[in-house]
Amino acid sequence: MSAWLTPAPTYWLQAVEAALAEDVGHGDVTSACLPPDLEVSWMIEAQAEGVACGIGIAEHLLAPAVDDPEDCFLRVHLRDGDAVGPGTVLLEGRTFAQKALVAERTALNFLMHLSGVATLTARFVQAVEGTGARVVDTRKTAPGLRALQKYAVRCGGGANHRMGLFDGVMLKDNHLRALGGVVPAIREARKVVSHLLKVEVECESLGQAVEAVRAGADVILLDNMSVPQLREAVQALKGQAILEASGGVNLDTVRAIAETGVDLISVGSITHSAPALSLHMEIT
Amino acid sequence: MSAWLTPAPTYWLQAVEAALAEDVGHGDVTSACLPPDLEVSWMIEAQAEGVACGIGIAEHLLAPAVDDPEDCFLRVHLRDGDAVGPGTVLLEGRTFAQKALVAERTALNFLMHLSGVATLTARFVQAVEGTGARVVDTRKTAPGLRALQKYAVRCGGGANHRMGLFDGVMLKDNHLRALGGVVPAIREARKVVSHLLKVEVECESLGQAVEAVRAGADVILLDNMSVPQLREAVQALKGQAILEASGGVNLDTVRAIAETGVDLISVGSITHSAPALSLHMEIT
Amino acid sequence: MSAWLTPAPTYWLQAVEAALAEDVGHGDVTSACLPPDLEVSWMIEAQAEGVACGIGIAEHLLAPAVDDPEDCFLRVHLRDGDAVGPGTVLLEGRTFAQKALVAERTALNFLMHLSGVATLTARFVQAVEGTGARVVDTRKTAPGLRALQKYAVRCGGGANHRMGLFDGVMLKDNHLRALGGVVPAIREARKVVSHLLKVEVECESLGQAVEAVRAGADVILLDNMSVPQLREAVQALKGQAILEASGGVNLDTVRAIAETGVDLISVGSITHSAPALSLHMEIT
Amino acid sequence: MSAWLTPAPTYWLQAVEAALAEDVGHGDVTSACLPPDLEVSWMIEAQAEGVACGIGIAEHLLAPAVDDPEDCFLRVHLRDGDAVGPGTVLLEGRTFAQKALVAERTALNFLMHLSGVATLTARFVQAVEGTGARVVDTRKTAPGLRALQKYAVRCGGGANHRMGLFDGVMLKDNHLRALGGVVPAIREARKVVSHLLKVEVECESLGQAVEAVRAGADVILLDNMSVPQLREAVQALKGQAILEASGGVNLDTVRAIAETGVDLISVGSITHSAPALSLHMEIT
Amino acid sequence: MSAWLTPAPTYWLQAVEAALAEDVGHGDVTSACLPPDLEVSWMIEAQAEGVACGIGIAEHLLAPAVDDPEDCFLRVHLRDGDAVGPGTVLLEGRTFAQKALVAERTALNFLMHLSGVATLTARFVQAVEGTGARVVDTRKTAPGLRALQKYAVRCGGGANHRMGLFDGVMLKDNHLRALGGVVPAIREARKVVSHLLKVEVECESLGQAVEAVRAGADVILLDNMSVPQLREAVQALKGQAILEASGGVNLDTVRAIAETGVDLISVGSITHSAPALSLHMEIT
Amino acid sequence: MSAWLTPAPTYWLQAVEAALAEDVGHGDVTSACLPPDLEVSWMIEAQAEGVACGIGIAEHLLAPAVDDPEDCFLRVHLRDGDAVGPGTVLLEGRTFAQKALVAERTALNFLMHLSGVATLTARFVQAVEGTGARVVDTRKTAPGLRALQKYAVRCGGGANHRMGLFDGVMLKDNHLRALGGVVPAIREARKVVSHLLKVEVECESLGQAVEAVRAGADVILLDNMSVPQLREAVQALKGQAILEASGGVNLDTVRAIAETGVDLISVGSITHSAPALSLHMEIT
Repeated sequence: MSAWLTPAPTYWLQAVEAALAEDVGHGDVTSACLPPDLEVSWMIEAQAEGVACGIGIAEHLLAPAVDDPEDCFLRVHLRDGDAVGPGTVLLEGRTFAQKALVAERTALNFLMHLSGVATLTARFVQAVEGTGARVVDTRKTAPGLRALQKYAVRCGGGANHRMGLFDGVMLKDNHLRALGGVVPAIREARKVVSHLLKVEVECESLGQAVEAVRAGADVILLDNMSVPQLREAVQALKGQAILEASGGVNLDTVRAIAETGVDLISVGSITHSAPALSLHMEIT
Repeated sequence: MSAWLTPAPTYWLQAVEAALAEDVGHGDVTSACLPPDLEVSWMIEAQAEGVACGIGIAEHLLAPAVDDPEDCFLRVHLRDGDAVGPGTVLLEGRTFAQKALVAERTALNFLMHLSGVATLTARFVQAVEGTGARVVDTRKTAPGLRALQKYAVRCGGGANHRMGLFDGVMLKDNHLRALGGVVPAIREARKVVSHLLKVEVECESLGQAVEAVRAGADVILLDNMSVPQLREAVQALKGQAILEASGGVNLDTVRAIAETGVDLISVGSITHSAPALSLHMEIT
Repeated sequence: MSAWLTPAPTYWLQAVEAALAEDVGHGDVTSACLPPDLEVSWMIEAQAEGVACGIGIAEHLLAPAVDDPEDCFLRVHLRDGDAVGPGTVLLEGRTFAQKALVAERTALNFLMHLSGVATLTARFVQAVEGTGARVVDTRKTAPGLRALQKYAVRCGGGANHRMGLFDGVMLKDNHLRALGGVVPAIREARKVVSHLLKVEVECESLGQAVEAVRAGADVILLDNMSVPQLREAVQALKGQAILEASGGVNLDTVRAIAETGVDLISVGSITHSAPALSLHMEIT
Repeated sequence: MSAWLTPAPTYWLQAVEAALAEDVGHGDVTSACLPPDLEVSWMIEAQAEGVACGIGIAEHLLAPAVDDPEDCFLRVHLRDGDAVGPGTVLLEGRTFAQKALVAERTALNFLMHLSGVATLTARFVQAVEGTGARVVDTRKTAPGLRALQKYAVRCGGGANHRMGLFDGVMLKDNHLRALGGVVPAIREARKVVSHLLKVEVECESLGQAVEAVRAGADVILLDNMSVPQLREAVQALKGQAILEASGGVNLDTVRAIAETGVDLISVGSITHSAPALSLHMEIT
Repeated sequence: MSAWLTPAPTYWLQAVEAALAEDVGHGDVTSACLPPDLEVSWMIEAQAEGVACGIGIAEHLLAPAVDDPEDCFLRVHLRDGDAVGPGTVLLEGRTFAQKALVAERTALNFLMHLSGVATLTARFVQAVEGTGARVVDTRKTAPGLRALQKYAVRCGGGANHRMGLFDGVMLKDNHLRALGGVVPAIREARKVVSHLLKVEVECESLGQAVEAVRAGADVILLDNMSVPQLREAVQALKGQAILEASGGVNLDTVRAIAETGVDLISVGSITHSAPALSLHMEIT
Repeated sequence: MSAWLTPAPTYWLQAVEAALAEDVGHGDVTSACLPPDLEVSWMIEAQAEGVACGIGIAEHLLAPAVDDPEDCFLRVHLRDGDAVGPGTVLLEGRTFAQKALVAERTALNFLMHLSGVATLTARFVQAVEGTGARVVDTRKTAPGLRALQKYAVRCGGGANHRMGLFDGVMLKDNHLRALGGVVPAIREARKVVSHLLKVEVECESLGQAVEAVRAGADVILLDNMSVPQLREAVQALKGQAILEASGGVNLDTVRAIAETGVDLISVGSITHSAPALSLHMEIT
């Protein structure tokens, strides 16, 4: 799996530094009480079942510096996307106590949040296994964390929808009406955007979907349709455009939706409502 | 309630602009197809029960500019902290369609996330009603969103623990051991930090708590104690220091913990695992 | 024409402020000698034939502030994309002399540079008129100015290729070899990237192009092919994939290339080698 | 030649990182398909005659990291300011394929742009060889790239005019009129600015130039004068002030202008209209 | 002494880079004349009695880079907080001349400024020696340098008051009046702020101080009181709250104030009016 | 007097926002207790004799916003550079209490610091009145505040030396030795830097000064010379170069130095050791 886009984008570091800064402010007044040369050994352990994500970030935050003492180290036991359970050790290391204590919470906050997203994604992916449908994310993400959450989705086995408003066209009802219908809307879109971007049309009925496919839509968003409606749309349009189902998707409904034969199922909750995966740091 | 610290801090705007930027990138290729002078009316509606939070952010993102047409407006129907239910309108307005469509998702992402935090907090607050215990947050927050999440906690009726490592001392086991016990540790802390910061000591037993109070701790964190242990600690120490319970707190256990008489109950899940509150924008 | 993506992206302002800052530094030591309340009238005039671009930026830099004297004004005579000739006035205004003199050079530098790009693009567009081929840009842009240059290309009547490495897949020889050929390469790409991005394959022979189309490539880059080779490729593949010609394109060769029937012709020189359009500011 | 100011200024890095960021965005979706441990050998070759510039930037972008495999390297064959021709190798190296492919375009864009400026400058410098006149640049630069373009001018054998509005006084017609003539204008300038900055006066006639020199101007800008006018000005004023010619300077006219005996000839086109020098990267 | 909070906060580096940037701008035009491989030996020497502060900053600015010649070095002779006198060497080293000359002034400016603050603080601390009173700083700091100045205060033997408006409550006359008196004001403060922040009340009379202590104030600011008034306040309130004296404190008055028995004496001049400590760099 | 360079440079705002941010952090926890609609009237008053500086900054920080209540206002009583004494009101206004209290300290810190610099400068200027010598500043400034301090120097009647390493050449002993003496050093400098920058040479003897003037130095820094030595240098070189005295300058010595006839006297203490001018805000 090649879950990371290359290179590790700049915002990766920026988000991590910003999170560390909001925790540390002008300094950790508690760790300041410790002797600067005190060393500790630590390990980060999962406390629940799930999928790990964010290990590189923890590594960045907790790694010993070049000129730290010789017995300092950091060892990574897992890779993003690996399964964990209670007691699984993700990373362990030995560094100055001040360094470990200052970075501990920020490292855990990233690991817990991203592993939470990967874990919930993996549940959806597992639920549709064998159907041929792919679980994709949405733009309903935690503000400031989109690229990282979308990475976590990939680590959980899901696929990414567009990253933002800039790398894909999505024509909704308002656009179609304002542009005089689906045919002129798609024509306008083809004219305005790069030829490397596809055009998706959000449809609320089979009729509209058929019209959009005929007008040249690359992808059809079948929005809030019932399972029978989805099945009908698949029979009519499969192979002529990529078919994406969305709306009302949860772990109880996703299998039936997948079995209709749609290509993609987009799920907002994997990014906006994933509970954190429990992890903690043991210091000795 | 005066939930906002004053002034609305700079990071409020920065986080909002950063979130908008990650969605918009070099431009919204879909809205670019629309006529620039097309206007739409819109309203943001709740789709579930909860507590609203983030209205000022949505207002900032969706407000008409000074030189927009005269019929443009934005009307706020609620204040942060107000209860909402399915169909409650939070804001409505009329602006250029391009503006509304570009800002829609970012505004909703903030509203859904922060209202989710406020809503879950409110459930915990309600669960301990009448006991005298206060629900407080932790540093287990979504990276980059701490100050906003802590604001949402206040909107949900909770109180804030320290903002970060810089505005409060928290001595844990490692600190106590490294500094030679609770007495020298507290003495060192008093010497290093401003006289306006209190010293909290994390204790795993009643004995340790008693020792810490005698050594002058202002606040005792009773970590992962059972309800009977908490009750015993309250009987021994109530009024001599602020008593905070933490660990294993959820909506099923919080009432019993509160009834032990502790002053504060800290809950990580209200910030790290709150599901988003469902909201959507109607455009007409 | 809707040449601007919406909203005017943030980097627009950032690039303008950065350019102003590199010119002004800690202050304009010459204008500092002038009386602060001295007003001037000015106009920006073209000195050669071409296509205007960057007027909004000049407007931003030169507009009077809210509390400037009542006789201050700024009037825009043209829109980006309009043709100009020697003596055409683009904007005129009246402001404090210090303001006009400080912003003059930065405004002109943007106008001259972007109008230069739009003008050269328009020549290529004109050269292929009636053939059905579209002129598109490349990633060979002036560092830091890509989005603005691509806007200028649209103003000159051209179309945009992908904005960067992130909004379109372009498989070259190295990728194909490393991934074991065109079939596995396209399969891998479809798996890794959003379903809203198309896959383009750079081909150096007709055989390779045919293979890529069969493997599902959306776009074929016919690289450095002769006109007869291009014609052959069009006969074989037109309508099965978007066909883009590149390499060796200049104002002498572009018409013949366009007449082969390719869909797109990408031209690096419109962004990396466009001479500035001559413009100056008259101050009275 | 000591073409770089020291230290390599911060904006050097900032401009490079910004350019890389505008190309990469949230990630290179094509390179993401490659195996992360695939290595490639590459070399950057000139495809035309010219003067190299920007090698340090390419080195920064393409150098292997400290912990890359042992066979990774980067070798620089030339220095900025050296002449190149078709086939000249500027740099070569071996790194992970993903790294090379992500940085390739940004490195080439800088090299091609800056070498283009250096090359055109060198042509002007060559054209005036032996006359004693120096070719200097102007503030007519590509927005955001001034310091780098001015470095390229030095690499091409030219000299720099002031960097911006802050490091030199340039009194034009407007200033003189507003301040009551050349005498009070120069007096005011001497009072306002640091004693380490010289005062230049833009003159449109010999009479005005003589007056300015008498009033103590350090430098005279002889603006848009004919060759005979320039010759007359040189006869009248040579040695009493630095004499700079500007306006209507191109490769056809520059020699005659230089032969009038002026000290400096400022040329806008070397920064605002230099075509890129053709360079490409061979990957094997 | 553990004068540094941990980790060395981000603003430390930012302030240093910003100061270097404001000195260097686009480059050091004088050092640019030197041969790049010229090396110099240098040492930084005190020219007066005082307390050193800022050595880590000078080290950061002047240290040789990893790939500098082998004979380059930097040796630190003292630690922040150590006493110096005329001729004391703080640091010495050998680096490229360009590097030393570019960083010299910035390094000295930090050292002289921070050592000045530490030195003046030490005088106040010495003046109150044996009284049990601690010298604390205020928020009257040089804009942008607060955290560094407060570090210098700790190096001089003083203690820190709150860092800013965010890490401590200070109720003044306006707050008390607006909130209906000291009792409701303190109650409101306890409700709004984290339980780890103490509440200080500024009092102008003993009566007010007594009332504030009864209402639960943690700290009393005895503002502009005479020595007899302070003594009276100490007799009434010592041990019930922390007592801080402020106003009219200078080296002549501070001893008498300290002998009243107050716990803290806050002194604005140690940060807003400390003269720089004379230091210079010898280059050979 | 035109003390401000135009436009008010960007760093003006940046320094002010940074200073406000370091004071406010995530919020003013004390003002948060106040009712948001509480208004106060305030005035800023001098408490000592001096020269005002920084009024525009205070205005920026304390001005009512556009949509504040109608009775809000801000009135400026003085201009930067005006003399003040105990009781002089600089500004007064009426705004929301929260706004005034949050900005109070930052506004006063700027006013007190900059007025301190202007005041001390004015003392030096007064001391040399009638001699023809000008008082100039140095690069020995508070880190991050150089441009503002240099503005304050102008407000106090002084003049500015170069702003940094970039806008003036200053050849010291090291440069001369490394470059083979004063003649080749000046020649090299003329070649490297813009023709609008002058060349200053630091001299330690009259002989060296004479040599430097002959070699074409524009300015001579007579470093640490006695009054008789200065007098001798003036007799030898007055009018052939600008003569600047430096070293050992204080309020006791400056008059005698000025009377030697030097053109400029540079004084480090006006920026590195100026005590703050006492000012306070009255709130009612």
